[in-house]
Amino acid sequence: MSLKFTAPELIAFIEDVFPQVRGDFALDRLEEDSLVVRLITAEKHLRPGNTVSGPSMFALADVAAYMMTVAHIGREALAVTTNCSIDFMRKPAAGCDLVAHTKLLKLGRALSVCDVLLFSEGTEKPVARAGLTYSIPPR
Amino acid sequence: MSLKFTAPELIAFIEDVFPQVRGDFALDRLEEDSLVVRLITAEKHLRPGNTVSGPSMFALADVAAYMMTVAHIGREALAVTTNCSIDFMRKPAAGCDLVAHTKLLKLGRALSVCDVLLFSEGTEKPVARAGLTYSIPPR
Amino acid sequence: MSLKFTAPELIAFIEDVFPQVRGDFALDRLEEDSLVVRLITAEKHLRPGNTVSGPSMFALADVAAYMMTVAHIGREALAVTTNCSIDFMRKPAAGCDLVAHTKLLKLGRALSVCDVLLFSEGTEKPVARAGLTYSIPPR
Amino acid sequence: MSLKFTAPELIAFIEDVFPQVRGDFALDRLEEDSLVVRLITAEKHLRPGNTVSGPSMFALADVAAYMMTVAHIGREALAVTTNCSIDFMRKPAAGCDLVAHTKLLKLGRALSVCDVLLFSEGTEKPVARAGLTYSIPPR
Repeated sequence: MSLKFTAPELIAFIEDVFPQVRGDFALDRLEEDSLVVRLITAEKHLRPGNTVSGPSMFALADVAAYMMTVAHIGREALAVTTNCSIDFMRKPAAGCDLVAHTKLLKLGRALSVCDVLLFSEGTEKPVARAGLTYSIPPR
Repeated sequence: MSLKFTAPELIAFIEDVFPQVRGDFALDRLEEDSLVVRLITAEKHLRPGNTVSGPSMFALADVAAYMMTVAHIGREALAVTTNCSIDFMRKPAAGCDLVAHTKLLKLGRALSVCDVLLFSEGTEKPVARAGLTYSIPPR
Repeated sequence: MSLKFTAPELIAFIEDVFPQVRGDFALDRLEEDSLVVRLITAEKHLRPGNTVSGPSMFALADVAAYMMTVAHIGREALAVTTNCSIDFMRKPAAGCDLVAHTKLLKLGRALSVCDVLLFSEGTEKPVARAGLTYSIPPR
Repeated sequence: MSLKFTAPELIAFIEDVFPQVRGDFALDRLEEDSLVVRLITAEKHLRPGNTVSGPSMFALADVAAYMMTVAHIGREALAVTTNCSIDFMRKPAAGCDLVAHTKLLKLGRALSVCDVLLFSEGTEKPVARAGLTYSIPPR
């Protein structure tokens, strides 16, 4: 396994493929079997109660697993999410970014599996945990 | 079990509590143990490939289970999602609404469990399936 | 889509492939996109509190989705479970069988997705709900 | 948070409450927010293809999360599994134990959430990953 992207190349690729999320995410770290991506929390990601919305947390976990998968399979491949199971455990803070610590648990021929822990930046207890499976089409 | 809202009251309540999604959802049907809610698909819900984004599908499933739960426990209660497991099965069409057929499987003292099937309007095969658990705080 | 097995052929195939569960399961109904399979509840499936154990419920949901998948892809294929998300909602009764109502939501080239509702026989409210994904190897 | 059991007390409690699994599990390590429990793999846990069965993997993940929860809430409480999402990623080896590395992600008033990684003993890549939620009844 070796990475097909550097961190700046990977975030540029994401913004190219998904222009509608441009500026929403930053990639703090990229390694062979893990990465850290952050949601740059803005007004549109919040919901009443001064917290980050569930769909925004889902979106962060989903993009994190996508980046982890694409980092290995490269830009030609059209990986799609097939399953996400997410546990919401604590209310995220509204005034700070949300950080996704992502591990690649499996990179198979047909499927990748990632584990994602979401934290409000600077706090120790995770706000959510997600497991995601991506389907990798035959090349 | 009897409902605490009519359909128009329930959608009004959702728009009141979550002003940022005002106009995004319509409630097609409300019964004791099921409901049908639709995402009025707009540009912001799409992603490249001419399809509805994963976070938009998640948001629809989540609001559907929330409405089903709140319909029974009433407006005072602050139900929060604790788990969602979602299977993405087919690519939704971009040019039509997304419809969530929602069943209440359990309404307990502390938890509600709903099952949601998402369809591109007018098609027979579901694009996604989700199971959601809401935690109901003690009153 | 057409079935590769009759109901008696399918249960015989399961008992041939998994001899250790011989006599545990009965197939009540087999249709193109649904089936009903029952766990013939015995002492070994119970746990204290006079109920059916979690692993026995999981095993029933898993075999139900396997039978639904194999019914379509035939006996040569080696389908394996890749994900199961199961919600336990009520305590099953110990003195009766557990019945799994199973729907085939997707049969793709590489994955099948099934939805399973488990009932204590003769009761109306489900004891558990499971979504299962099977990976279908290339032929 | 402090533990209500030592490791030997906890395994003794499990064997007392679930006599049918006596001898199946060993507790290798118990800490405040993690534990390692092993399935002492026997003939009954295997399935054809020389591997550990899915229900046995589920049972190990379930007992691991139960032990982690009970270690904190004590012996009076009747915690029950409400959700398990499990990803099966690799075929476990048949000739060795299965080891569950378990983390307590949340211990709330009403729910606990654990993350479990299962390994064939002595191997580096996990065979499965599970997230489990236990409901803790009011005391």
